[in-house]
Amino acid sequence: MTASIAPRPFTFSVVATAGRARAGVFTTPHGPVETPAFMPVGTLATIKALDPTEVETAGARMILANAYHLHLRPGDELIRDLGGLHRFMGWNGPIVTDSGGFQVFSLESLRTVDEDGVDFRSHIDGSKRRFTPESVMRIERNLGADVVMQFDHVVAGQSPVDVARDAAERSIRWLVRCRDAFDRLTADDPDPRQTLFPIVQGGIHAGLRQATARTIAELGGWTGYGIGGLSVGETKPDTYAMVEAVDDVLPRDRPRYLMGVGFPDDLLAGIQRGVDLFDCVAPTRMGRNGTAFTSTGRVNVRRAELRDDPRPLDAHCGCPTCTRFSRAYLRHLFAADEMLGPRLLSLHNVHFLTSLVRSARAAIVAGTPFPSPPPDSAPDGA
Amino acid sequence: MTASIAPRPFTFSVVATAGRARAGVFTTPHGPVETPAFMPVGTLATIKALDPTEVETAGARMILANAYHLHLRPGDELIRDLGGLHRFMGWNGPIVTDSGGFQVFSLESLRTVDEDGVDFRSHIDGSKRRFTPESVMRIERNLGADVVMQFDHVVAGQSPVDVARDAAERSIRWLVRCRDAFDRLTADDPDPRQTLFPIVQGGIHAGLRQATARTIAELGGWTGYGIGGLSVGETKPDTYAMVEAVDDVLPRDRPRYLMGVGFPDDLLAGIQRGVDLFDCVAPTRMGRNGTAFTSTGRVNVRRAELRDDPRPLDAHCGCPTCTRFSRAYLRHLFAADEMLGPRLLSLHNVHFLTSLVRSARAAIVAGTPFPSPPPDSAPDGA
Repeated sequence: MTASIAPRPFTFSVVATAGRARAGVFTTPHGPVETPAFMPVGTLATIKALDPTEVETAGARMILANAYHLHLRPGDELIRDLGGLHRFMGWNGPIVTDSGGFQVFSLESLRTVDEDGVDFRSHIDGSKRRFTPESVMRIERNLGADVVMQFDHVVAGQSPVDVARDAAERSIRWLVRCRDAFDRLTADDPDPRQTLFPIVQGGIHAGLRQATARTIAELGGWTGYGIGGLSVGETKPDTYAMVEAVDDVLPRDRPRYLMGVGFPDDLLAGIQRGVDLFDCVAPTRMGRNGTAFTSTGRVNVRRAELRDDPRPLDAHCGCPTCTRFSRAYLRHLFAADEMLGPRLLSLHNVHFLTSLVRSARAAIVAGTPFPSPPPDSAPDGA
Repeated sequence: MTASIAPRPFTFSVVATAGRARAGVFTTPHGPVETPAFMPVGTLATIKALDPTEVETAGARMILANAYHLHLRPGDELIRDLGGLHRFMGWNGPIVTDSGGFQVFSLESLRTVDEDGVDFRSHIDGSKRRFTPESVMRIERNLGADVVMQFDHVVAGQSPVDVARDAAERSIRWLVRCRDAFDRLTADDPDPRQTLFPIVQGGIHAGLRQATARTIAELGGWTGYGIGGLSVGETKPDTYAMVEAVDDVLPRDRPRYLMGVGFPDDLLAGIQRGVDLFDCVAPTRMGRNGTAFTSTGRVNVRRAELRDDPRPLDAHCGCPTCTRFSRAYLRHLFAADEMLGPRLLSLHNVHFLTSLVRSARAAIVAGTPFPSPPPDSAPDGA
């Protein structure tokens, strides 16, 4: 079931399946990634609060960074001149850059879309900017991530079908322009060490998703597929239904990346529907705010009840936080506004999600029952 | 030159001397510390921004925590009930707790001193509190540090001799009460794993310092001596002169701890005047603010000139910051207010000071020239 036996920079092999779920290996110029895999988010070339060595210790092999944010600060040309994103941020594993489509469309009143691209104002200083498929490819080429995502048109999760169709069709036209621009940028490079992923849009409309996926797949030659525009306000059943809708359409010998998804239940639901890659800011954002994922549900370490709790966050967790520190200590760190608190919780949360995904992979390989998602809240309400 | 050959919990051996400078080993229940040694400060049971494993990687073997702060938050009894400070904060090396004398006297308008103790208001919630030698010994016993400092009366660095004498003499009376209280608290414990250090006060008055040191030494039986009330507003020549003043008075077979001192030039000056232990918040406080010690002087990583600087902070440094990241990346982290910035600079600064002290120790042992302190500012003004 190997996708390619030729020694190419990017290959994908499915090593086992269980229903629609797949265990695979996605090989990149910066090493192999066992899939399914959860990718923590390093928006500004740092997984917030964590050191690259901790990110690796926490079990992450591939991470995401944001072209929009890095273009604005410190600048993609600066990062290129300093040797690229891997070297800049001290991460030697594979990286994917999000194109900025999601960020630009999140700006709402600050942007206007036309067929050629998007005018927007920087969220930092209000300066006027313009993204086009061509300019975004240049930015992502400068950053040098292994996987670069196409520039796409993202709409709100509950958008009606005509709005979703307009955006999905524009995203396909922009995909062709991205591919042409990417080909031009890499034409003189015998070893570009980058690949371009398309993004399937289509809102919460199954037929539109399928038509979009089919058109993109027929363009051919992609090393992987993004599924975008989900986890942006629609219901979870809608999210899952959209993943199911494209399952039979997308080629099975390429990895599928469900963008922006990463709560424990969503990861397991996605894996069971054939998804291979995920990213989400949840583990680090929640960790900074004092909330931990655990096998018995979420724990808010700021709660007064934890004041004298000698137990680890999660008795079943082998992460450097749980093996060394009590809930009482973590609560103290947050109460005293000490930086180590967000650090230790972010580390735990990333470890928790990578471990959950790894246990799902092990179940696929061994043919054993799939892990259950933890409850959304702890039984004690902590 | 071994101070004691009996297997006691606390021993101090001088292994080499160079002038007044000594290289030694201070053995504690939590392991040996090669001296001279710089101790980073973990005010609230965490070296700010750093993980205990990083503190160890940075070369620190013994750290300081603050009884005043930990009494207020999270509470010394809570820490005792959770197994003591070492276990609470995940640090298995030796710890010294400062008594709170310095903190309480820093409160100025919030405190009143009488012969029995000090009334003060918590800087957190304004609640009324009282410290006496007896209550502070109970607090430090609860915390369980290897070395507990006496409760002392600290005055401003430029205080006139009558003010300094009054405080120094009160500190001696309080020392006797601390010793008696400490003895009572540990009377039933065959292995108390703690020792009490006196603190020599006396302002910037050499005769007063000498008289105080003599009286304390004659009380006898101390495992080490604190030199306090310095680095609190007096000039550097005054600081150094006070260390010199007590050099002939304090027993040479016991470690000497110069409290609150830790800039590079002060460390080297102290070592050359016979000091064995130092602590200072400077490396972590300056690190959080974006300033790094380097072999060519201080570098402020927020400066615009560093925007595209591919060099490490310090080309001669082997710390995990300098071996992995550029000045440009560090500047980016601070510009973007990313937590990794303060982390990496704090780590570097602690590593820088422990390395400086270690190189001084090596020079003492080898009989080679003493290292020179780095300039106070970088030649390029960065």
